[in-house]
Amino acid sequence: MANQIFFGSFVHTPALDSIEYLHDTVVAVEAKGTILTVESLPPIGRHNPLAWIRTTLVPSLGWEANTPVTATRPGQFFFPGFIDTHIHASQYPNVGIFGKSTLLDWLNKYTFPLEASLRDLAKARRVYGRCIRKTLSHGTTTAAYYATVDVPATNLLADLCLQAGQRALVGRVCMDQHAFSPDYYRDETPEEAEAATRACMDHIARVDPEHTLLRPVLTPRFAPSCTADLLGRLGRLHKEGNWPIQTHISENRNEIALVKDLFKDIVPPSKGEDDGMPSYAGVYDHFGLLTPQTILAHGVHLTEAEASLIRDRGSKVSHCPCSNSAITSGAARVRWLLDRGIEVGLGTDMSGGYSPSILEAARLASLVSRHVAMGGEDAAKLSVEEVLFLATVGGAHVVGMGDRLGLFRPGMLWDAQLIGLGVVDANGNTGTGAVEDPAVAATAASVASADTDQTLNEDTNVDVFGWETWEDRIAKWLFNGDDRNTKKVWVNGRLVHDRSAPNFGVTPPATETAEKISP
Amino acid sequence: MANQIFFGSFVHTPALDSIEYLHDTVVAVEAKGTILTVESLPPIGRHNPLAWIRTTLVPSLGWEANTPVTATRPGQFFFPGFIDTHIHASQYPNVGIFGKSTLLDWLNKYTFPLEASLRDLAKARRVYGRCIRKTLSHGTTTAAYYATVDVPATNLLADLCLQAGQRALVGRVCMDQHAFSPDYYRDETPEEAEAATRACMDHIARVDPEHTLLRPVLTPRFAPSCTADLLGRLGRLHKEGNWPIQTHISENRNEIALVKDLFKDIVPPSKGEDDGMPSYAGVYDHFGLLTPQTILAHGVHLTEAEASLIRDRGSKVSHCPCSNSAITSGAARVRWLLDRGIEVGLGTDMSGGYSPSILEAARLASLVSRHVAMGGEDAAKLSVEEVLFLATVGGAHVVGMGDRLGLFRPGMLWDAQLIGLGVVDANGNTGTGAVEDPAVAATAASVASADTDQTLNEDTNVDVFGWETWEDRIAKWLFNGDDRNTKKVWVNGRLVHDRSAPNFGVTPPATETAEKISP
Repeated sequence: MANQIFFGSFVHTPALDSIEYLHDTVVAVEAKGTILTVESLPPIGRHNPLAWIRTTLVPSLGWEANTPVTATRPGQFFFPGFIDTHIHASQYPNVGIFGKSTLLDWLNKYTFPLEASLRDLAKARRVYGRCIRKTLSHGTTTAAYYATVDVPATNLLADLCLQAGQRALVGRVCMDQHAFSPDYYRDETPEEAEAATRACMDHIARVDPEHTLLRPVLTPRFAPSCTADLLGRLGRLHKEGNWPIQTHISENRNEIALVKDLFKDIVPPSKGEDDGMPSYAGVYDHFGLLTPQTILAHGVHLTEAEASLIRDRGSKVSHCPCSNSAITSGAARVRWLLDRGIEVGLGTDMSGGYSPSILEAARLASLVSRHVAMGGEDAAKLSVEEVLFLATVGGAHVVGMGDRLGLFRPGMLWDAQLIGLGVVDANGNTGTGAVEDPAVAATAASVASADTDQTLNEDTNVDVFGWETWEDRIAKWLFNGDDRNTKKVWVNGRLVHDRSAPNFGVTPPATETAEKISP
Repeated sequence: MANQIFFGSFVHTPALDSIEYLHDTVVAVEAKGTILTVESLPPIGRHNPLAWIRTTLVPSLGWEANTPVTATRPGQFFFPGFIDTHIHASQYPNVGIFGKSTLLDWLNKYTFPLEASLRDLAKARRVYGRCIRKTLSHGTTTAAYYATVDVPATNLLADLCLQAGQRALVGRVCMDQHAFSPDYYRDETPEEAEAATRACMDHIARVDPEHTLLRPVLTPRFAPSCTADLLGRLGRLHKEGNWPIQTHISENRNEIALVKDLFKDIVPPSKGEDDGMPSYAGVYDHFGLLTPQTILAHGVHLTEAEASLIRDRGSKVSHCPCSNSAITSGAARVRWLLDRGIEVGLGTDMSGGYSPSILEAARLASLVSRHVAMGGEDAAKLSVEEVLFLATVGGAHVVGMGDRLGLFRPGMLWDAQLIGLGVVDANGNTGTGAVEDPAVAATAASVASADTDQTLNEDTNVDVFGWETWEDRIAKWLFNGDDRNTKKVWVNGRLVHDRSAPNFGVTPPATETAEKISP
């Protein structure tokens, strides 16, 4: 990796309710992927930005004269990479397949059989490989993954993330509660579950000792899947290295009743609950699993007392609107969570959610917040800026990297995407693909200038007419954008997806084409 | 136009709760676009379908030996064209731009200024041209369009639909209520509104006298926009030729209160209403506007008495889930409407809805039905088959063409789309594009057979692994499909969109490139 310069328009969300547009801006990224400087082009450089970068900026940094420069075309912009705070890589082949099920029958009918089948490593490679490539193509630079119970398949997921260059928390699923795990797919004992978890942690320590991309995450599937013994072991394991934890909470009303029933004789009643029973959050807290490193998926039906407890512990919530609507779990009250001081990010929750896209999760977070508002809480509505904040900065905090990810700031990592909306500028430049050198842009613009409306030639679902403000363009991207608008994706400064390259710039795993489909 | 043969897999929804898969099937389409026969390939023809079609079927029809044959590749299928029962072509540039507004402020802030600006015909051509191309690319073969108040711009929309080959109901918007229409955009008098409406009807009669593609539709914007005089005139105009009518009903609670207030001294109290006031449906009925030819958009908050009235009058409802969620109108109870015997189709309602896609409307109809179910009505959930029925057969009934559109049946019109999901078959055939002749398919398959997983090479958001059932594939298409999966689109047997052709097979209007952008 070499040092790099990025130039042009940058858009990010410094706070929940604000979006910042940095135009004519230069971002210098060091070889290790860290942003060194973010600065506005001085007036003296505006006539010929490339010349200024080469003759003034690069020498002042002490970088080589041939440092590569990537510039946005007119209408394009850099945006922070999306962070998927809750995604089951192992369920990826089932996206869209959920019928009319709800959580507990969905698990047994669709989910457990598929997850179990991934102990076939050839199948796991195919599923995980495609999941990583698909989410990268949608701009997901960091994912908090659930794999399966299987150790080799989970390790394979880690290897494939490393190979593809996607930042990931990789979790081996723990589930030893025989009553609620199928006999064909579970940990037989708490001891085995802990040992298998440690094996996956050791693997990640071996393949990525500096944690440049990978971190292990302790993954009790959800309370009903785990014995008290196992939950206690995972709580103690967390303390050993302050490891991240991910699990589900309060997704579905039947699930909540089940948790109370399972733990009522094990966990004391939780403070502030009306029913004299332990709360769902109280169960996790009892076992030391509510920590600042904990990602709680869903949190649809949390009580006030649970929200207070979660806030006090500093745990985070992954909001998964696509899943919550699709499998009829409920409408999570994101504004309510935020107002209580809880940090929130977005998750696709494939395959409870059907979409691999965090942009779609943001879109659906907007819609679901309006369904909450229809219940009478008009303030519940989330704005364009707010859902984009959740998709980036919010997610960064949820995965414990709020100081390194989500913004274009010195010291942050260059995990970013180049977005193009097919904007036609005054010169007829449709802005397909970034240019490596601004000088190229001038040529492209003059070639295209004979035609002032070329959108038919670019394949995008976002239709920009040219008169829109930047705010309008961002709204159009949020509501009609898809992977076609994500032109390039970088993680740690490395280009990991490029729509303009053959095969999208992705080298398929060498063994994949030789493998047979294993149904 | 010549006679044509289509061969392969056909999928449609003969009833609300059923989907039918017709494989190895031949559909013969006459030059005028009508389906002559739908028949299963006999066993004797299966070894070499093309030969059987050419040597047995074509001669038996008395058709020319060189009759063109279009066949699905493995995994592809023909599906009826989508019917958009409620779409404001004039609002297309505003998709995604709605902030936190609700209906009445949204109209004043975003909608009226844009609609008014389309009296600039160069701008109208650009907006309408792109709207038609975009919706065709998403498989919309029929659209019930709202244009604007302006006659020449409305006539231009009709002309452009005819040119592009999209079937359309084209409505000039009537709005003469000065109190609720801006002074810069309205009909000054009821007489002018009626005359302008007649002018647009005359234009359609001139350019498409046989109504092969176009029909005029009487379009009182919604009750608050119209005087009683105008509503009465439109009711009488309907009777002259049994013309279709489209309007809005019961979208938003403030709107309903406004209607009652505006018409309480004009329209008698409606039967069955608790408040002793006219109901929204009662207002339309009073003026003769509730007819079997009437399309009522939204119907979110209808009362039991209104539903009975609508059912008795045979009027239809256009369900617009994207819009209803986006501008916080409410969650329409589709099951409740269907159970009351009301026919329902889907509408994008751009730009209250942000998406040009009826597939997305179907997807969101599924989600919204689950939000209704979360309120306690578990039976409210709509299945995959049900929302696809609404998108096709349901829509056909709503636009008054249930006997000609929505199914692959003799006597129906060939308004259809070819869907490809990037399925990899046993020979490694990824199924990009249909083949005009099955002989070509064999060659393509053998070329591709070296690679059993080519999905990286095809640009699709639907990821099919190969082991899915047809039911699963349809669900995957519904939930992750987009315009990339709509390979070709036909209306009246004419190919009107082709993704594999340069410029998607669409010839841009000759004058477009020469026009300046008028913001």
